[in-house]
Amino acid sequence: MTLKSIGEFGFIEAIRPGCLIRPDNVLKGIGDDAAVFTGNSNETMLLTTDLLVERIHFLRKTTSAFNLGRKALAVNLSDIAAMGGTPLDAFVGIAIPDDCSLDMLKELYDGMKSIAAEFDVNILGGDTTGSKIDLVISICLTGCVPNKHVLYRHAARPGDRIYTTGRLGDSRAGLMILQNSGESEKKTFDMLVSAHLLPRPHVREGRFLAMEAEVHAAIDVSDGLSADIAHIALQSGVGVRLYREKIPLSEPLKDFCDRLGLDPVDVALTGGEDYVLLVTVSPKAAQDIETRYRKVFAMPLFQIGEIVEAGRMEILGPDARIETLRPSGWDHFKSR
Amino acid sequence: MTLKSIGEFGFIEAIRPGCLIRPDNVLKGIGDDAAVFTGNSNETMLLTTDLLVERIHFLRKTTSAFNLGRKALAVNLSDIAAMGGTPLDAFVGIAIPDDCSLDMLKELYDGMKSIAAEFDVNILGGDTTGSKIDLVISICLTGCVPNKHVLYRHAARPGDRIYTTGRLGDSRAGLMILQNSGESEKKTFDMLVSAHLLPRPHVREGRFLAMEAEVHAAIDVSDGLSADIAHIALQSGVGVRLYREKIPLSEPLKDFCDRLGLDPVDVALTGGEDYVLLVTVSPKAAQDIETRYRKVFAMPLFQIGEIVEAGRMEILGPDARIETLRPSGWDHFKSR
Repeated sequence: MTLKSIGEFGFIEAIRPGCLIRPDNVLKGIGDDAAVFTGNSNETMLLTTDLLVERIHFLRKTTSAFNLGRKALAVNLSDIAAMGGTPLDAFVGIAIPDDCSLDMLKELYDGMKSIAAEFDVNILGGDTTGSKIDLVISICLTGCVPNKHVLYRHAARPGDRIYTTGRLGDSRAGLMILQNSGESEKKTFDMLVSAHLLPRPHVREGRFLAMEAEVHAAIDVSDGLSADIAHIALQSGVGVRLYREKIPLSEPLKDFCDRLGLDPVDVALTGGEDYVLLVTVSPKAAQDIETRYRKVFAMPLFQIGEIVEAGRMEILGPDARIETLRPSGWDHFKSR
Repeated sequence: MTLKSIGEFGFIEAIRPGCLIRPDNVLKGIGDDAAVFTGNSNETMLLTTDLLVERIHFLRKTTSAFNLGRKALAVNLSDIAAMGGTPLDAFVGIAIPDDCSLDMLKELYDGMKSIAAEFDVNILGGDTTGSKIDLVISICLTGCVPNKHVLYRHAARPGDRIYTTGRLGDSRAGLMILQNSGESEKKTFDMLVSAHLLPRPHVREGRFLAMEAEVHAAIDVSDGLSADIAHIALQSGVGVRLYREKIPLSEPLKDFCDRLGLDPVDVALTGGEDYVLLVTVSPKAAQDIETRYRKVFAMPLFQIGEIVEAGRMEILGPDARIETLRPSGWDHFKSR
């Protein structure tokens, strides 16, 4: 059976099972001109969208279709997490070149459905079309959050502590390994490769933090720590001071950087695609939130710096030397 | 100024003006991890998404960037129209190859903003990324409609009359002219070319029809009349009889088909991208709805056939000869 033999509508029927896992509030999912559903009238709506383009965001030869499907939805889940929201319904646009087999596409949707089910998310619709060369996956994801709990980028205040919900730089190192290394190194640094291919969106962490009135601003680390904290600074009209020695790094990242003579903190600052959350927290509630967070997640919130007055973007070294923090993360158009 | 010099975030700032035209209910538009807005709690939500891929859906050399932007949003507006809905908020994902200039992209967004403003639609967010070769535009559009007024594909009943809100086939002829003809023919058949490049979504027509309890099923004609009426038949569990002589055709289409020795009804049946609505209406209310529709829109509803019992898909010729109606419209994967 091929895509050509079953056609667009046969394909839609083939991927439909497993798309609707939470049917309450859904009047019509896949199969009409638009999906029809009732919103949650007590909460504010969220909507995010991300495009994944072959040869820009992924190479078919370095990821399985299943992992690609998972990651395509994971990056959108991470955006909802960064707003403190509960993800609800996904819509999948896909542009398929001739050389994608039906089996590969089913595997891709299986990956999406597996992470959708983990987070209680429906796949309610989308669009299916052709493409000349590159596979393109465009996902749009809705969510909801009580109005007073929304976590914005623009809400950081001087004096806030800056926390991250996970270690940084692993994904970037994993990408370097996928691009440049042989099988044995991939095996040695399996954890870094997985961080790149299978990021875990911090949805539950985001909801926990959103319920705390003293958590002020949040963003997910997609462009890179230095670039993403700069988004918070710019939009909040504040400055940032990070502590070089407090940036949480995994042991495999340190080992990998040792081998290559890289500074793992630089990888963490500029890497991107970590999909952990960066949040700013009022100092008066910080200790209490740290303690309760650790009880729930059995993981620390890592304090990496603090919000300072506008105009200062700095990173403090071990010898108290202050360097300028440059937002040098990922930009799709600027030459690097 | 180039895209490379201003970067991704400079680009977002450049296209931001004019995106938010109806700020009520919007807590955050462009600029955070997700858009934040309050739904209309009295109405059902709609969401549709469409991907436009270069060399599949359009050629940069046969359309202006402005018209491309308009059409990208128009096709989504047409989907909301087909559900009887009011469009609300658009989210624009765009994957941009290196050879797109900043001016071209601004023009594309100007096209989107112009049709968004006509239909009171916000552009609330999206995603901006690179692409190796092909420009990709992925739009996601929300809408709302009172629950009891939603127009589904699955609601047609035997005995219903089938109507279209406009003439069919012009867009397909326009595409043929763009692909094969010289400047003088493009000028002669300007109206057909415009039907292809600048389709007008029938949003107001859809809302009018949705408010009528005796309008049962609806779809917009995107794949082609024969394919789209087959979607209604399949999903409603009914059959279809069309009248060949009643299918509304424009004079330019007839002239164009005369020149090429084509049957304009065949072009209308299989063409696609007409973006008019197909609706089925209870016979007891049909005359009354026709009359009131004409008063509001100064255009007729064109009756082109009727819904019959399941299993029959036929088209009646002028000499009462019955042919089988084949759903031979657009399918992105089947060989044609």
